[in-house]
Amino acid sequence: MNIGLFGFGTVGSGVYDIAQRRQQAHRILAIGVKSPEKPRPAGLPFTRDPEVILADARIHTVIEAISDTEVGYQLVRTALERGKHVVSASKALLALHLPELHELAAQHGVSLRYEAAVGGAIPVLDTIDRYLAHEPITAIRGILNGTTNYILTRMEREGLAFEQALADAQRLGFAELDPSADVDGLDARNKLVLLAYQAFGVHLPPQQISTTGIRSVSRADILAARAQGGALKLVAEVRALPEGTIQARVAPQVVTADDPLYAVAFERNAVAIESEWGGPFLLGGRGAGALPTGTAVTFDLDHIDQPYRVTRRLAAATPALVTG
Amino acid sequence: MNIGLFGFGTVGSGVYDIAQRRQQAHRILAIGVKSPEKPRPAGLPFTRDPEVILADARIHTVIEAISDTEVGYQLVRTALERGKHVVSASKALLALHLPELHELAAQHGVSLRYEAAVGGAIPVLDTIDRYLAHEPITAIRGILNGTTNYILTRMEREGLAFEQALADAQRLGFAELDPSADVDGLDARNKLVLLAYQAFGVHLPPQQISTTGIRSVSRADILAARAQGGALKLVAEVRALPEGTIQARVAPQVVTADDPLYAVAFERNAVAIESEWGGPFLLGGRGAGALPTGTAVTFDLDHIDQPYRVTRRLAAATPALVTG
Repeated sequence: MNIGLFGFGTVGSGVYDIAQRRQQAHRILAIGVKSPEKPRPAGLPFTRDPEVILADARIHTVIEAISDTEVGYQLVRTALERGKHVVSASKALLALHLPELHELAAQHGVSLRYEAAVGGAIPVLDTIDRYLAHEPITAIRGILNGTTNYILTRMEREGLAFEQALADAQRLGFAELDPSADVDGLDARNKLVLLAYQAFGVHLPPQQISTTGIRSVSRADILAARAQGGALKLVAEVRALPEGTIQARVAPQVVTADDPLYAVAFERNAVAIESEWGGPFLLGGRGAGALPTGTAVTFDLDHIDQPYRVTRRLAAATPALVTG
Repeated sequence: MNIGLFGFGTVGSGVYDIAQRRQQAHRILAIGVKSPEKPRPAGLPFTRDPEVILADARIHTVIEAISDTEVGYQLVRTALERGKHVVSASKALLALHLPELHELAAQHGVSLRYEAAVGGAIPVLDTIDRYLAHEPITAIRGILNGTTNYILTRMEREGLAFEQALADAQRLGFAELDPSADVDGLDARNKLVLLAYQAFGVHLPPQQISTTGIRSVSRADILAARAQGGALKLVAEVRALPEGTIQARVAPQVVTADDPLYAVAFERNAVAIESEWGGPFLLGGRGAGALPTGTAVTFDLDHIDQPYRVTRRLAAATPALVTG
């Protein structure tokens, strides 16, 4: 299969690495980057011109893994319009434009998959889509952001203040220099939008989801959680209430020791799925990193002929969104 | 899809229940049972004659969910030989005969799936087969038996002796009157054989796997584990060592608090998968019960045209089995 790849950061380089390790099961014909003059591995087919990928009829699937949401959105749109399958890792653009992009994909008979965008290597979107296709899902609760979970774990285990733990996370590469998307809960919120869409077929506008980050979490909050026999975690949660109402929020919560999310420490992610027949389920793993996200993207490439079936029972109704 | 069902115990009744709730997506034409004179729901197509199912050309897939291993084995064989797909929940017969049954299925162009046989509702076999098809898996460790995990959890949290906890588990339906398959580790061992086959393509003869149950676990053992900051769990584990060697065993182990298996309490099951690129992964959920196992069987019915691809790298070599 001939692939075009946009972006050569963590995700893009992980995909490339796995393609090499798998002896090029997928051939990457071109890699679109913003600055090809950056120091990069030699001999790779870098290009600054997106048309090198988008206009190449041999390229059957495009991977979108760039950081700029608006540019990414335009690339995904154009690729779908030109009849190319798309695998995206960009939760921010997906959370904003999911229904429109799925409609575009359907119109052009191609598929749009994005396993790496939620929970890194954890196959949660595919599990909901396929294994739980007919299961009445009632709630999804997740630790979806490794940076904040890392910070909270360090605060809890070592008595660090938020600023100290954040600085350490930045030094070790678990947090970015501008940490706001992580610590203010926006990244977890975007992932929650994708999970809600997969499980309930409803698109929750991200800005309408009540979202509290961890900036104001104090040592006292951590100790209060411990006194209750629990730990403070940034939990993203969506719940189907009776009569088609959906409740969604992102906030620090006291997670007790008997909750499967309690043991999820440091940069790990996990998703707990509550459902009527087979559940509850827990899926855990690495939420970020080159090889974990590369694993998820590669899985989507291997199954690109299987578009998500985002048609759940609730999709027929227009659910009311209740936040908080 | 027209189905024949053998067995109407926990698994069989769960499958039937889900078929009803899903408005008969799968039509169950006949239910083979040993004693149709037992009190049973009225109006169901029970039969004592297996040929009613096996000779019915309309029946395309057979579900085998009976307790007698030898009878189950003969039914599975005959169904495959007659060109019917088979979904089985019987780990004991599968652990003994897996290579032969897969060969038979391939010869007759049908598939043999058995998601419910390991970890109940947890989609671990499908995840290994599909999501991790190309992933270099290095180890699988699981809490695969709910009865023993329930007993150990009660011993640990309430200070009960083994006999007290077992008696309670029997009274509550978490343990059978003859608990030996569970408490001696034989059930976990059979499930480990299925996991090893799925992950590494090797068939480990169950009786060659070093297996220790929990009968001799004392209060002192539990306290010693706690003093080490952990808990005692019955862990089934298989590991791929260098040069194609496979190490497998079932034994009580001290699981420390930072191990994802530590938080798996009472009758819950979980499987931790270690791998080189995307892992580690954790999959947890209900290991038994009518609706959980019914969910897994129904998933296999929905995907019966997708046989497992049990062809892993190690399959080419004949690995040495090192136990202990």
